[in-house]
Amino acid sequence: MRPSHALQADQPHDVPHRVRVERRDLRPDDVAIRVTHCGVCHSDLHALAAGPEAFPLVPGHEFVGEVVEVGPDVRDFAVGDPVAVGNIVDSCGVCPMCRADQENFCQDFPTLTYGGRDRVDGSTTLGGFSTEYVARDRFVYHRPAGLDAAGVAPLMCAGVTVWEPLRAWGVGDGSAVGVVGLGGLGHLAVKMAHALGARVTVFTRTLDKADDARALGADDVVLSTDDAAMAAVAGTLDLVIDTVAVPHPVEPYLRVLAMDGTLCSLGHLGPVTVETTALLIGRKRLSSSGSGGRRSTREMLDFCSRHGIVADVEVLPSRSIAVALERLEAGDVRYRFVLDLADL
Amino acid sequence: MRPSHALQADQPHDVPHRVRVERRDLRPDDVAIRVTHCGVCHSDLHALAAGPEAFPLVPGHEFVGEVVEVGPDVRDFAVGDPVAVGNIVDSCGVCPMCRADQENFCQDFPTLTYGGRDRVDGSTTLGGFSTEYVARDRFVYHRPAGLDAAGVAPLMCAGVTVWEPLRAWGVGDGSAVGVVGLGGLGHLAVKMAHALGARVTVFTRTLDKADDARALGADDVVLSTDDAAMAAVAGTLDLVIDTVAVPHPVEPYLRVLAMDGTLCSLGHLGPVTVETTALLIGRKRLSSSGSGGRRSTREMLDFCSRHGIVADVEVLPSRSIAVALERLEAGDVRYRFVLDLADL
Repeated sequence: MRPSHALQADQPHDVPHRVRVERRDLRPDDVAIRVTHCGVCHSDLHALAAGPEAFPLVPGHEFVGEVVEVGPDVRDFAVGDPVAVGNIVDSCGVCPMCRADQENFCQDFPTLTYGGRDRVDGSTTLGGFSTEYVARDRFVYHRPAGLDAAGVAPLMCAGVTVWEPLRAWGVGDGSAVGVVGLGGLGHLAVKMAHALGARVTVFTRTLDKADDARALGADDVVLSTDDAAMAAVAGTLDLVIDTVAVPHPVEPYLRVLAMDGTLCSLGHLGPVTVETTALLIGRKRLSSSGSGGRRSTREMLDFCSRHGIVADVEVLPSRSIAVALERLEAGDVRYRFVLDLADL
Repeated sequence: MRPSHALQADQPHDVPHRVRVERRDLRPDDVAIRVTHCGVCHSDLHALAAGPEAFPLVPGHEFVGEVVEVGPDVRDFAVGDPVAVGNIVDSCGVCPMCRADQENFCQDFPTLTYGGRDRVDGSTTLGGFSTEYVARDRFVYHRPAGLDAAGVAPLMCAGVTVWEPLRAWGVGDGSAVGVVGLGGLGHLAVKMAHALGARVTVFTRTLDKADDARALGADDVVLSTDDAAMAAVAGTLDLVIDTVAVPHPVEPYLRVLAMDGTLCSLGHLGPVTVETTALLIGRKRLSSSGSGGRRSTREMLDFCSRHGIVADVEVLPSRSIAVALERLEAGDVRYRFVLDLADL
């Protein structure tokens, strides 16, 4: 076993604290990674509030680092390679979703980067708030050399989560894309949609982020509480990416869709009620998506490399995890906290 | 004014009875049609149960007949032409939906064939349960000569309502299409999807229509109450057309969709609740649609002409309107009642 350190929560609502953990000895297709930075995702807050059966828990599922050792069958990685890992570290590999390069939708459920069940030994996976991570090579990605390491970490979950719907709905030159909510996911959606050539409209409840939104690439900013402003953009957008993580009415965002437009809900994982007629008039679609497969993760990293896109991050020392979680809970972040794990 | 006869309901739940009505004198772009057959649509039942402000009411919005007179500006029609009319007889013509040939989604609301408000004189439109109808030429369609007239009538509402989603989602050779409910809409969806080259699966609550479904073109029939049978087709269909007109859970039909598949609800016009995760896993889409625009109506009639597709109808004399409504309410129809109006 490989000794390392991690930030672990022992029970619900515990602030993760430094502990010694063991990583597995390398299997033939394993890559050992010295973790340098890991993003703090909104879903980490949910995980830390889960039931007692989920603990002890080491969070963190969007991280970057450097290869320190590889198993004998690994061909794509060598010691010293800059790499990145997202929220999935294995999948069945044989179901229709996996065969379609959509391991995020694996019908046998993908192995999550933390709190998942390892497919070989059945152990619970420990996340990236750690000095080292051992992962199967298929789910390790080469990190583009020209991009800031800390800013790449959030691309691995937040980034690919907005990238997949942008690509699935064919966003490109001339597309009209709406982004609801300007947080970790939203700010990357704006950057990527803009770089894809779309005209981007940001919907926000307060206009204090309007200048930021424009600086990120938004062409228009609409106050979602302003009925006249909402009516002015009715029927104009091809795709709306809704990143709001709490229950909220979706019909205002169906109304801003053009014919055959799609509202893709990424943030809220609960029940949604829509009037069928709100879909009928204009043959609109309600959809959702989450995370990404290996192919689109590679494409996303390549696209970000070519366009110089990284997340806007605030890097905090690992000992400041409590501050990061508190401020994230309060929405006080522009736009993603990243923990520096070199100091752990 | 042009005297004619119609079947009119004077108040809610009234059985329409024969009355004398006036049709307007022809405007320059009007076509006068001697109505021979009109389908009885499920929505006629809803209309006859509406509030008192909707009465008197002459139902009927899928009819066929023959041109008896044309206005001076009409170029596309001549006296004696076999024609057909659907559930829309006018629209604004200038909104984005109209400009996209989707007058059914007109943002200024299309003028409905009955119970609608005429855009010129503000009068209430009287439907096709009538000996004559006067309509603007843009919303009159040439009826293919080789098709049975009575069987064409239901194509004008039920037919185009299933045709539009089949085309909007690109159904063709190799597509896998599900049809929920084998009634007026469903039986035409099966015929059309089969003729488009799709593999068709019919979902039904009772297997008594299984032989019929196969005769109409279904490859598979699945009992929707059989969990094992439903599980066996999970993740396999590109498009499911749900024609069930009463509230029902939609998640069983999201589960049978393949990745990026769409569930298009045509029957139920109320609120629908879905778990976001039922859309997320496989990036599935919930949509709806209804009726059709002029272009797709013409395309649908042309397609049906080439493939010899008409509705399976039971033709009743106009005096049997009460029987038609009662049996339709009871679901006792395979698959559409059509009134013979030559006897009115």
